[in-house]
Amino acid sequence: MAIAKGYAAHAASAPLAPFTFQRREPREDDVVIAIRYCGICHSDIHMVDNGWGASVYPLVPGHEIAGVVTAVGAKVTRFKVGDHVGVGCFVDSCTTCAQRDVDREQYMPGLVLTYSGFEPGSSTPTYGGYSDSIVVKEGYVLSIPDNLPLDAAAPLLCAGITLYSPLRHWKAGPGMKVGILGMGGLGHMGVKLAKAMGAEVTVLSQTLSKKEDGLRLGASHYYATSDAETFTRLAGSLDLIICTVSSPIDWNAYLSLLKVDGTFVVVGAPEQPVPVNAFAVIPHRRSLAGSMIGSIKETQEMLDFCGRHGIVADIETIGVAQINDAYKRVLASDVRYRFVIDMATLG
Amino acid sequence: MAIAKGYAAHAASAPLAPFTFQRREPREDDVVIAIRYCGICHSDIHMVDNGWGASVYPLVPGHEIAGVVTAVGAKVTRFKVGDHVGVGCFVDSCTTCAQRDVDREQYMPGLVLTYSGFEPGSSTPTYGGYSDSIVVKEGYVLSIPDNLPLDAAAPLLCAGITLYSPLRHWKAGPGMKVGILGMGGLGHMGVKLAKAMGAEVTVLSQTLSKKEDGLRLGASHYYATSDAETFTRLAGSLDLIICTVSSPIDWNAYLSLLKVDGTFVVVGAPEQPVPVNAFAVIPHRRSLAGSMIGSIKETQEMLDFCGRHGIVADIETIGVAQINDAYKRVLASDVRYRFVIDMATLG
Repeated sequence: MAIAKGYAAHAASAPLAPFTFQRREPREDDVVIAIRYCGICHSDIHMVDNGWGASVYPLVPGHEIAGVVTAVGAKVTRFKVGDHVGVGCFVDSCTTCAQRDVDREQYMPGLVLTYSGFEPGSSTPTYGGYSDSIVVKEGYVLSIPDNLPLDAAAPLLCAGITLYSPLRHWKAGPGMKVGILGMGGLGHMGVKLAKAMGAEVTVLSQTLSKKEDGLRLGASHYYATSDAETFTRLAGSLDLIICTVSSPIDWNAYLSLLKVDGTFVVVGAPEQPVPVNAFAVIPHRRSLAGSMIGSIKETQEMLDFCGRHGIVADIETIGVAQINDAYKRVLASDVRYRFVIDMATLG
Repeated sequence: MAIAKGYAAHAASAPLAPFTFQRREPREDDVVIAIRYCGICHSDIHMVDNGWGASVYPLVPGHEIAGVVTAVGAKVTRFKVGDHVGVGCFVDSCTTCAQRDVDREQYMPGLVLTYSGFEPGSSTPTYGGYSDSIVVKEGYVLSIPDNLPLDAAAPLLCAGITLYSPLRHWKAGPGMKVGILGMGGLGHMGVKLAKAMGAEVTVLSQTLSKKEDGLRLGASHYYATSDAETFTRLAGSLDLIICTVSSPIDWNAYLSLLKVDGTFVVVGAPEQPVPVNAFAVIPHRRSLAGSMIGSIKETQEMLDFCGRHGIVADIETIGVAQINDAYKRVLASDVRYRFVIDMATLG
């Protein structure tokens, strides 16, 4: 067993504090990773706060992990020491399935979360990326293209794939008008990815305060959802909307912006149910769908795509001592667009 | 102009009574039809009651029309006197579009409803099928296969296409598990059509009172939604559910019955919005969609399909004098499974 240093919440909503713990002895199919950077995802904060009621403490958050391979097990074939690698939201899957569904494993039972889950067949909690190292089964380690900086690539592992997967699944590409609802950590990745896929991108944000950024990142249009005129102007005009907003909003108003056969995909989950009007979907055969991260196969495809297009997140790098302040700023939407923790500051 | 006899509501919620009115002088592209039978659709009652607030009185309901051609305009090529024909929910379309979208015209602006609409470019109301004749533009007249009896074929024009279209659009067929929610006029057509397409059909009905019928019509399974055990047993097991129920029900409970990538299609519209939980769609990439009747092209395809498979509705034939009683029985779900008015009784 190796000793790892990290930051953990020791109880629900407690501030994160230094924490020393053990990583498992590497198995023959394991990759040992020195974590260089880890992104701060909004769901890290939600998990620390036990917002979904399933958090396990002490809780070391972090599932936007970028680092360098420091050792590999005897049976590892895809990675070698020195490789740039990433780890996303899960580190094992399909333990109850006869066969791993490589295209849709994120939706299958048996997913082992990168943190606040349990090591397969054990009561040992999984600890996430706010730490200096991690040991992960080869099949769940991603290769980060060499041309991408590790710090800004880290958020691709959750924010990136969360947008890439629905954009691909609902076939964003040339000739398609894609709306990105919300211009935060998820939304800004959606703009870059949809644009690189060839779609015409419209950002729907509460205000126009980030309009300049949106256009710079690839949006063709940028509208304020606080302006009722936006809904008149865009009625029936979009093929696909990805909703990254998890606060309660009127989904019906956004459904009305879709063309016939358009789809509104929810990736940000409001805690309360949202009233949906049957007439928002029936008269134009519209769909309201959900999407959640992506499979390992798809995540690798996304990283390769980002490598080819030079896509990373827009980040603000912080030291570990600033995590608790950064959490407050995330909750205040005061980050453009993702905090990334520099693990060299763990000291 | 020709004089037509029919039954009309003269005000919202008024009982239907005999009504004499004029049909337009046939144009060169018109087909004149002697109506033999007209189905009673639940939306006829809703329209009589001005339930959607757009009813035009006097209102002659009826959009499940089956009859025989009695005259054709000079430019009509597809029909001749004596042909068995049908008319569905609309008699013109796309008047504002540059081009008719033959695959999706039911979702386009400019649809002219068979009744309670207006003749294109005029203030003359359209009058529906509770009458002895109708004059319809050739492009909106359907051919009814000769092997189908006109009385039982009439409901195909609305109930049939309302189920056929989403079943086809979401690719019901061999290897697919399709749930039909609600075992009424729409639902019983869904069972027959999905079965004929090769799908494995599960009926979800409030009670088991119509179970024998459901199995006879082609369902492999029949469950009561009043039994909580149904939701445990069927969790995550269906590919597609068509919801024909327009009373308020918990859509989230039915979304939970879908597999990954499954779709819940609403064709019955509750008047009030239904609360939808983001977690009912996100963790399995499920979709909630709507669907509305079908295009003329698709309706003809459906009629030909029904001809090949010998599919018609299960009906109870009534005389015109019984319409008001039949309405009460429809509202009490006391019909197996569609009332059809015999127009010979107009006298």
